[in-house]
Amino acid sequence: MESVMNCADEQQPSSMANLWSNKQESSRTQKAKGGFVLVHAGAGYHSESKAKEYKHVCKKACQRAVDQLKAGALAVEAVAAALVELEDSPFTNAGMGSNLNLSGEIECDASIMDGKSLHFGAVGAISGIKNPVSVANRLLKEGQKGKLSAGRIPPCFLVGRGAHDWAVCHGIPSCPSEKMATKFSLSAYKRNKRKMELAERMDTGHSQTKKRRQSNENGNGSGCLDTVGAVVVDLEGNVAAAVSSGGLAMKHPGRIGQAAHYGCGCWAENARNIDSYSTAVSTSGSPFLASEDRVLGGVIVLRCCTCVEAQSSQNIQVEFLWSHTTESMCVGYMSVQDSKAKTHISRLPSGTVPGQSLAIEGGVCRLMGVTE
Amino acid sequence: MESVMNCADEQQPSSMANLWSNKQESSRTQKAKGGFVLVHAGAGYHSESKAKEYKHVCKKACQRAVDQLKAGALAVEAVAAALVELEDSPFTNAGMGSNLNLSGEIECDASIMDGKSLHFGAVGAISGIKNPVSVANRLLKEGQKGKLSAGRIPPCFLVGRGAHDWAVCHGIPSCPSEKMATKFSLSAYKRNKRKMELAERMDTGHSQTKKRRQSNENGNGSGCLDTVGAVVVDLEGNVAAAVSSGGLAMKHPGRIGQAAHYGCGCWAENARNIDSYSTAVSTSGSPFLASEDRVLGGVIVLRCCTCVEAQSSQNIQVEFLWSHTTESMCVGYMSVQDSKAKTHISRLPSGTVPGQSLAIEGGVCRLMGVTE
Repeated sequence: MESVMNCADEQQPSSMANLWSNKQESSRTQKAKGGFVLVHAGAGYHSESKAKEYKHVCKKACQRAVDQLKAGALAVEAVAAALVELEDSPFTNAGMGSNLNLSGEIECDASIMDGKSLHFGAVGAISGIKNPVSVANRLLKEGQKGKLSAGRIPPCFLVGRGAHDWAVCHGIPSCPSEKMATKFSLSAYKRNKRKMELAERMDTGHSQTKKRRQSNENGNGSGCLDTVGAVVVDLEGNVAAAVSSGGLAMKHPGRIGQAAHYGCGCWAENARNIDSYSTAVSTSGSPFLASEDRVLGGVIVLRCCTCVEAQSSQNIQVEFLWSHTTESMCVGYMSVQDSKAKTHISRLPSGTVPGQSLAIEGGVCRLMGVTE
Repeated sequence: MESVMNCADEQQPSSMANLWSNKQESSRTQKAKGGFVLVHAGAGYHSESKAKEYKHVCKKACQRAVDQLKAGALAVEAVAAALVELEDSPFTNAGMGSNLNLSGEIECDASIMDGKSLHFGAVGAISGIKNPVSVANRLLKEGQKGKLSAGRIPPCFLVGRGAHDWAVCHGIPSCPSEKMATKFSLSAYKRNKRKMELAERMDTGHSQTKKRRQSNENGNGSGCLDTVGAVVVDLEGNVAAAVSSGGLAMKHPGRIGQAAHYGCGCWAENARNIDSYSTAVSTSGSPFLASEDRVLGGVIVLRCCTCVEAQSSQNIQVEFLWSHTTESMCVGYMSVQDSKAKTHISRLPSGTVPGQSLAIEGGVCRLMGVTE
């Protein structure tokens, strides 16, 4: 596997560093709460024509998270807010506009993890809920409250009808499925259905199994494994991660993808002591890629440590990166000190082969503590 | 945590070693296929009165796996056969006789992993199927065949209605839910329901949240987290693991437990080279125990390496163990050379506290290769 390292440290970052140190001054008077968010709107293929839309939704998602952080919210709330924005975009394969399954229905997966408590919440194959991440977040929160009546252990991973009913019971409104499909997802469904029927007519008789084994076609409908995700650190140094996906186009009803899997779709873990790192990760792709010849996926990562300095013990150094083996990945990032998010579509260098090459980009920033 | 190490190496094993070396002679003429299975029928509390039943089902499960191995089946088929027997017992919380959920329904989780291919199959919250592990195994097998028509990636984890329908589509018969409940599971449901209603009447008003946090009651209905599981090695040295569970009593519909979780309920991985170990593990308990004050769980483990010797290059040394923090755990194990399985109910020493103490027992055996 060829590794293409475009370290942002050598490109944007000097301006980034300046930006943050300039902002540092103003934060001293504004008593701003610090924090940082990194989001992605999918690792897959982003045409130039849609680049603007993807960048726009990343920008909005960053802003939502930063608004939360400014209001004093913890990382887990900020990451959930970013995901809601990503889900609400009809251009992402999460929440609104998700891929349709074999039966023409939308079934979503989402999960969220709080690095402070290590609590986790997830939903799988959930239908009729506009923001699956909100249900995952509510499961996490309810889990943090401790046991239910008669000592029952609260659920942290609910699927299907049970997940939907639990959400409605907890005040999250139901959303008619037809409102969640878009013109684009419906036409992709029809196109995929025709393609599938054609393939099945060709694969008749005893040669079918053999053909199945040899098939190398990319059957992901729109060509995207475009799960969305976000990672956040708040000023206290708490980290959180979340992920949401409509799953593969034409998947079997009830199929659960990695976005709902504990330890697969996202992970967040606060540092246990002053010398270690807090880490948050959100992934895109399939967790079961052992036997695939082309590994298509993407990841965003954030790690940070508290820098002990003479002036302030609350400075947090954040290292962040995104990496993908897909043709492209759209990301956005923003610190609380920034006036707006930076967005970027990372692409494999021309001539490289998706699934066989890897792009890694990233940067470093320093969050200044509250100074009164 | 106090560790109570009762290494079977010093107890039963000398007789075990003799048994296997005696059998070695007969295998030379019988051309027997070798292999070894270890099963458990639940980590929880096994009353003396029911000990016989649990041992009996473990014995039958071992026999089923060994029958498969003798017929030349690979580890993954043998482990599935053992699980079917464990699920069919009305005494285990898996398949027939599973715990009922909050709505009085049975929803099962199961997963299986093949150490040779690293393929995995799982079902979650599946209803109306007598043997959930058979669906998981079929998902694994279909996954090994490669892509579906039009290049679609086959599912490896299906839940709820979708999982049920997929199973029926693949020739696995539906089973009416009422046939899967037992007198015991129905009366436990009624008892739990009353207990819950009583607790909720007591927990009224604004003090509810506080009470929830402080609750330390054990709400697992029958007092058991009794997932069942098995680990197998075949003569070729392939390992496989499987796990199946009816989940927590009174769980919310749609709740997925660890038995269905990739990397949580079971794991199997063949050695990659002659010097390393093949490993198979099956667990019982909750994957999300980080904040629990009492960690209740159990595990069975098998690891083996091929011993290169002058006489035969096919001798396999198998180390196996079971460990639990629950009051008791019922296990059975058998090699292909044995005439019947050994069964055992492992208990924490009296005076120790479940969730705060740990029992570990195990043994070693050597499987002799095929000699013609």
